[in-house]
Amino acid sequence: MRPVGLSVTSNKEFHMSALLQSWVASANTGVTDFPLQNLPYGVFSTQAQPTPRVGVAIGDQVLDLAALEAAGVLKAGDVPVFAQASINAFVALGSAAWRATRARLTSLLAADGDASLRENAALKAQALVPLAQATLHLPVDVPGYTDFYSSKEHATNVGSMFRDPANALLPNWLEIPIGYNGRASSVVVSGTPLHRPNGQIKLPDQARPIFDACRKLDFELETGFIVGRDTELGESLSVEAAEAAIFGMVVLNDWSARDLQQWEYVPLGPFNAKTFGTSISPWVVTMEALEPFRVAGPEQTPEPLSYLQQQGKHAFNIELEVLLQAEGDAEPTSICRTNFRHMYWSMAQQFAHHTVSGCNVRVGDLMGSGTISGPTPDSFGSLLELTWNGKNPITLAGGAKRTFIEDGDTVVMAGWCQGDGYRVGFGEVSGKILPAKAR
Amino acid sequence: MRPVGLSVTSNKEFHMSALLQSWVASANTGVTDFPLQNLPYGVFSTQAQPTPRVGVAIGDQVLDLAALEAAGVLKAGDVPVFAQASINAFVALGSAAWRATRARLTSLLAADGDASLRENAALKAQALVPLAQATLHLPVDVPGYTDFYSSKEHATNVGSMFRDPANALLPNWLEIPIGYNGRASSVVVSGTPLHRPNGQIKLPDQARPIFDACRKLDFELETGFIVGRDTELGESLSVEAAEAAIFGMVVLNDWSARDLQQWEYVPLGPFNAKTFGTSISPWVVTMEALEPFRVAGPEQTPEPLSYLQQQGKHAFNIELEVLLQAEGDAEPTSICRTNFRHMYWSMAQQFAHHTVSGCNVRVGDLMGSGTISGPTPDSFGSLLELTWNGKNPITLAGGAKRTFIEDGDTVVMAGWCQGDGYRVGFGEVSGKILPAKAR
Repeated sequence: MRPVGLSVTSNKEFHMSALLQSWVASANTGVTDFPLQNLPYGVFSTQAQPTPRVGVAIGDQVLDLAALEAAGVLKAGDVPVFAQASINAFVALGSAAWRATRARLTSLLAADGDASLRENAALKAQALVPLAQATLHLPVDVPGYTDFYSSKEHATNVGSMFRDPANALLPNWLEIPIGYNGRASSVVVSGTPLHRPNGQIKLPDQARPIFDACRKLDFELETGFIVGRDTELGESLSVEAAEAAIFGMVVLNDWSARDLQQWEYVPLGPFNAKTFGTSISPWVVTMEALEPFRVAGPEQTPEPLSYLQQQGKHAFNIELEVLLQAEGDAEPTSICRTNFRHMYWSMAQQFAHHTVSGCNVRVGDLMGSGTISGPTPDSFGSLLELTWNGKNPITLAGGAKRTFIEDGDTVVMAGWCQGDGYRVGFGEVSGKILPAKAR
Repeated sequence: MRPVGLSVTSNKEFHMSALLQSWVASANTGVTDFPLQNLPYGVFSTQAQPTPRVGVAIGDQVLDLAALEAAGVLKAGDVPVFAQASINAFVALGSAAWRATRARLTSLLAADGDASLRENAALKAQALVPLAQATLHLPVDVPGYTDFYSSKEHATNVGSMFRDPANALLPNWLEIPIGYNGRASSVVVSGTPLHRPNGQIKLPDQARPIFDACRKLDFELETGFIVGRDTELGESLSVEAAEAAIFGMVVLNDWSARDLQQWEYVPLGPFNAKTFGTSISPWVVTMEALEPFRVAGPEQTPEPLSYLQQQGKHAFNIELEVLLQAEGDAEPTSICRTNFRHMYWSMAQQFAHHTVSGCNVRVGDLMGSGTISGPTPDSFGSLLELTWNGKNPITLAGGAKRTFIEDGDTVVMAGWCQGDGYRVGFGEVSGKILPAKAR
C-alpha cells in the first residue's frame, strides 16, 4: 500500500488526514514543527563535515539530501543539486521536481514507505544528523529582496501615528500591493547577531540632525516567499502563474530603525533604516506543505484591477508569535500573537504586481509580506505599534519594560500551521542586538 | 626608458601630459574615447569565440585579456581572472592589482613599452579584436544596485514640479545623500531594447487608477560607480576608505515611468516605475583613468555631519550628453549637455553613507548618482525637467516633437573627460523603446 500523501496530486487528502507516521520517532510527537507532512528545506553543516549542503528537517533530525543523492537513493534532476550551499539549484528544477522530490522523501521517511533508507543502517547513520549537532546556514542565495506592505492593519496603524488618523491609508494602498526594493546582501539566517545601526536622527527640538546610534530599534514580524523560477525581462506573470511559481515560505524579521526611517524616508523610501539586516528562518516550508492550510483572505474592496483579480482561497492560516528576551531574563516573553491570514494582498497578487512592469525575477528572490498586524492590539507585528511609538511600554516576564529594543535583547519569531494532531512549523527566526559600533 | 604613465604612483603626470602614444594607431587620434590613458574594462565575445571574456578598449579595438593571461603575458592574481563573463573576479583582487594591471597594460600597449605583445604577431592577431566585430555584454555581475538622488538642481526641479517651488528641497536633502535600493536583476548593457512598461496610472479626472502602458516614459542621465571590495555586515567605511574602494564608473540610464511613479511612490519610494530596466555603458572606466579629471565639487552648506565630511577635490569633470532619435530620423538630436561636476554629494559621501548603518556591500555593487542636472534648462538630465512635465515639447532634428519617449525612440547617452589632445570616454549607453507588451 502506498502511504497516505505519496500521490503528487492528492494534496487535499492532507487537510483531513491526521499526523502521518514516520519511522523517525521524533517526527510523530504532534508538537514538533517538523512532522512528515512538513519536510522543509534548509542548508546545514556539521563539525565532522563542515561543507554546507541541503537537508530537510524531520522531527529532531536533519536528513542530508546530498548523502541520499550520492547514495543513489534520491535523484531530483539530471545533475546533483543537493551538495550545494543553497537550495537554489534544486528550486531551479521547477515544480515537477519539487513535487516528485517531496513524494520520494515522504515515501523514504514514512513508517510504511520505501525501505531504501529505513532499512539501510549505514545510510541512516550517515544521512540523519541530530538538529542539535547541525549548524544552519542561510538556505537561499537571495539575488533580489523585495519587501511589501500588505497588512491593512499595519498600514493603518503607521498612517495614524505618522500622518492622519482620519486618512491613515494613502489613496494608492487599496489599489496597489505597495512594495519597495530591499537590500539582499544583508539577509541573514536566524541566530546571526546584529549591531544596532548608527545613522542620522532628527530630534524635534533641534534644527539639524545628529549622528548617533539608533534609539528606536524595532522588529517587524513578516513572512517571505521564495521565487521558484526565472522570468525574462519584459515578461509578466498572471496571478495564477505567479502563485504556481512560489516555491515556499520563511518567517522574516524586517529589523527597522524607526528614528533613522522617519528622517530619511521622504521621498524615496526607507534605506539605512532597513539595510543593516533582515533575518529569516533557516527552514523554507514548501507551498505543498502549506496547501492544507489555505484559507480565504479578507474581502478586497474596491475590487482590484483585473491583473490583480483572483478567485478562491489565496491566504494561509499561519499562526505567528513574537517573543522578546532581555539579557539575563530566564525566558522570553510572548509579546505578539497574530496570523498570516489577515494580510489584505495575497502573495500571488504581490508577485504578479512585481512583474507587471516587465521586471524580471530570479530563482531565490525573497519577497517579504510586510509587517503582519492583526486587528487587536496584542496582534500588532512591531514594537512601534505594540507600544504605540513608545507611549505604552510593555513589561517583560523578568520585570523589564520596553518601548523599543535594547542592547542585549533577543527577538524570537515563530510560525506554524496547526493541523489535526500535528503542526507544520518554520522553526524560529531569532536575533540578538549587540551594541552599536563606535565610529 | 619607461614610457610616461607606467609608474603606479605618478598619476599626476597624466594631468599635464598630452596624449600617450600607443602602437595601436586608432588609439592616437585624439578623438577616440579609448586612448592609452583610458583602458576601460568590459566583457565581450565574438562570433568566432562566443564565450564572453574580459577585455579593455584601445582605439577601435578590444584587447582580449583572457588571451594575454593564457599566453602568460598578463598576470593579475594567483589564479586566472579574465576568462570570465564579468570583471568581478578581477575587481575582487583589490586596488594593488588594479594598479599593477593598468601599469602592465599601459606598458604592453605603449609605443615604446614592453614588446611582449607588440612584437608577437600571433598573439596580436589573437588578442586584438576590432570593436566592430565584438558583442559587448554586461561588464559586471551586479549583486546590488542602489540609486542616489544627489543633484541639487534635479531634486529642486522635481520638488518644484510636484510639491512646492518655495520649498522644493525636502528638509533631509542637504543632510543625507538620499538614495534607495534599486532592482539589480534588470540592469542591462547598452543596446538592450526595452518594452514600455505597463502599470497603474492615476488620471486626475478619474476616481480610480487605470491599467495601461506608461504614457510618460522618461530617461534619467546618470553615472554609476562600481564597488571594488566586500565589507562585513556591521562594518562602515569612512569617506576616505569609501573613495579608495571605488573601482570605476559607468554611464547609466535610469529609465523612469513618470505616471506609474507618481501614483505608486508614497510612502515607500519608486518601484515598478524603475524596475523594468536600467541601462549601463559596456565600459567601466577606472578611477585611475579619471584621476586627472578630479575637480572640486559644489560648496556644501550646511557643513555635512562629521561622517560625511571630506577635504579636497572629490568631484570629476565628466562631460555628459543625451541624444534622442525617433524611428526614421536620419540622426539623433542632442537634447542635453551637462557635467558630472555639478553633483552636490560626492561618490565617496554616497558610499560612506550607504555603509554607515552597517549594511554590507559586495564587489560589483552598482551605485547610481541620481539624475545629473546642471543649472541651465539645456543641462537638465531628464525629459521631465527638459519639457517641464510635458509643458514645453522639444523638437528633434527630423521635425518630431517630444514631451516624453515614444515607441521606437532610441536614447543615447555619452560621457567623456576632455584632456589635452585626448579624451577619456565611456563609449555610449543606448536603448530603444519597444511597444508595451499586450496583457
